[in-house]
Amino acid sequence: MATYAVIMAGGSGTRFWPASRRLRPKQLLPLAPGDERSLLRATVERIAPLVPAERVAVVTSAELGEATARELPEVPQENLLTEPLGRNTAPCVGWAASVIGRRDPDAVLMVLPADHHIADEARFLEVLRRGIEAAEDGAIVTVGIEPTRPETGYGYLEKGAPVREGVHLARRFVEKPNRQRAEQFLASGQFLWNSGMFFFRASVILEAIAEHLPSLAEGLARLDEAAARGRETEELARTYPTLPSVSIDHGVMEKVDEVWVVPGSFGWSDLGSWTTAWELAGHDEDGNAVTPETLLEDARGNYVSAPKGKLVALVGVDDLVVVDTEDALLVVPRERAQDVRAIVARLRERGDERR
Amino acid sequence: MATYAVIMAGGSGTRFWPASRRLRPKQLLPLAPGDERSLLRATVERIAPLVPAERVAVVTSAELGEATARELPEVPQENLLTEPLGRNTAPCVGWAASVIGRRDPDAVLMVLPADHHIADEARFLEVLRRGIEAAEDGAIVTVGIEPTRPETGYGYLEKGAPVREGVHLARRFVEKPNRQRAEQFLASGQFLWNSGMFFFRASVILEAIAEHLPSLAEGLARLDEAAARGRETEELARTYPTLPSVSIDHGVMEKVDEVWVVPGSFGWSDLGSWTTAWELAGHDEDGNAVTPETLLEDARGNYVSAPKGKLVALVGVDDLVVVDTEDALLVVPRERAQDVRAIVARLRERGDERR
Repeated sequence: MATYAVIMAGGSGTRFWPASRRLRPKQLLPLAPGDERSLLRATVERIAPLVPAERVAVVTSAELGEATARELPEVPQENLLTEPLGRNTAPCVGWAASVIGRRDPDAVLMVLPADHHIADEARFLEVLRRGIEAAEDGAIVTVGIEPTRPETGYGYLEKGAPVREGVHLARRFVEKPNRQRAEQFLASGQFLWNSGMFFFRASVILEAIAEHLPSLAEGLARLDEAAARGRETEELARTYPTLPSVSIDHGVMEKVDEVWVVPGSFGWSDLGSWTTAWELAGHDEDGNAVTPETLLEDARGNYVSAPKGKLVALVGVDDLVVVDTEDALLVVPRERAQDVRAIVARLRERGDERR
Repeated sequence: MATYAVIMAGGSGTRFWPASRRLRPKQLLPLAPGDERSLLRATVERIAPLVPAERVAVVTSAELGEATARELPEVPQENLLTEPLGRNTAPCVGWAASVIGRRDPDAVLMVLPADHHIADEARFLEVLRRGIEAAEDGAIVTVGIEPTRPETGYGYLEKGAPVREGVHLARRFVEKPNRQRAEQFLASGQFLWNSGMFFFRASVILEAIAEHLPSLAEGLARLDEAAARGRETEELARTYPTLPSVSIDHGVMEKVDEVWVVPGSFGWSDLGSWTTAWELAGHDEDGNAVTPETLLEDARGNYVSAPKGKLVALVGVDDLVVVDTEDALLVVPRERAQDVRAIVARLRERGDERR
């Protein structure tokens, strides 16, 4: 049974503006501290010990197809699946399972986001191996991250009984909790962060989709028929907009009888915003994470990103995010970094190409 | 009696970094709001109704000579006096008085800083006319600005008895006061800001220098002799470093028996820092003074300067100064804008050309 990676790389996230742009989103940027590779490239290279590039499929949007192909020349062109428009993760996973299942009916899929950061790759690969083995045995499997803080920004999974070494039943999926519940979750030791990584045989997830998301299954069937006639691209443009826009978590994982979870602890971060970039980066004694060409004067807790050769001087400011690029500059308090989305929304509204 | 302007343009101020640089200091920048001219050019054009360019002398440093000449092509080359090094304002004024006095023994000098902002030019010219008339009559004259706030950053002059319409005796010069005294000064109505503008006949100030700064007078005499032999430039390099480094205020004005002062109120600002630039500029309803290409989101009281075409986004920040240039960026709270000097000092120390 061969394992295929399905890298979900369709994100057009706005939270790393102005470094990220519509046609150069987060996954195409080198946002991990000390790593000059894009997050997408790092994702593919990280799993190379388990999955060779020929068995890596990347799902992205049509407008990002070219940039994604350029970023991953080792991935065969036919493994690059470009969605005509984003319909959340259930259609993305379903379509990838269909396409790969046609080529290899025994395929085991490992579904991974393209834009996460993993600090401990060896432990990460161990977790992936467990997930793959469980999926080979027919299970629907997810990865749950051992929480390190009472995070309210993630969904959680409750661990159930162990099913084998390092694998548990997942008792239930839990929406983003409030602070109090998040603290209870952390204290209990029974809850894990929902990482958005999944393992299953292509045939198994397609059956689950047929049962729980029949309208998606119908659409996928139309794509299969069209593919048989060499007409998948045309059919895609017609069918994709009609697929249910729902996440694989809500649409399938939460509904199937049994989900297994592999708990893991490998320095995971979803790199959700500039705040996270600051958290992950190395800090000076005053908590600053800045470029080598930054001069600090009575400044603490700041994050600076700027082009090489640009001198940045921070005087008397604390806890700021300062991101400079050739044509746009952002200044925002670290704790409000997510609010940069408002700026991108305004740029989109007025058709500004710098979004 | 012809009036000559002596523009003191030797400043290498650091408080407008990164817009200002060692070879492009404040007076060569268009820092006045709504005015695309450099402060130096604006200074020369402002006085054109009183003094034609042929009678404008500009004293600057050797390293700024070229840039200053380029900025003022209408000023004759021989009126550009370049000091081999800065020795404060007494040598600057003394040397200019010597040079102009040689050409025109009856010359009346109007000494003006090159880097101030004047909002009301008509009222300013009125004050200058009064100063010139008084100087023609042999007085040593200064301009005192009617204070509009209890400023602790300026020296003051106390008004004495009136000597003629719009002209008073100056009772005394006062150092920068503390807050309490500044408030008393303001309330009394008897104190004026020392503007650094002076009027006197060349012969009168040279006599005063001979009396109160004999070492300066000796140096100037050596320069005169050398000039008579066509050797002033060589002598300048030898003599200038030996001249007493003292301000014309301390070295002469405070010591002569009688100084007259012309009180004025013409929207004067010494444009001392980015804070002042923010104060002078037009503000939006939230107190921001920013470039047209700045996007603000929950941001108040900020100042932004950036190159044309650069998008600047401020989110959730108040009272910041953000100055972007091609190769350097500054972020500092408005109230601490003067502390940018620390950055320039560090750049100088390490020989960084971006100072």
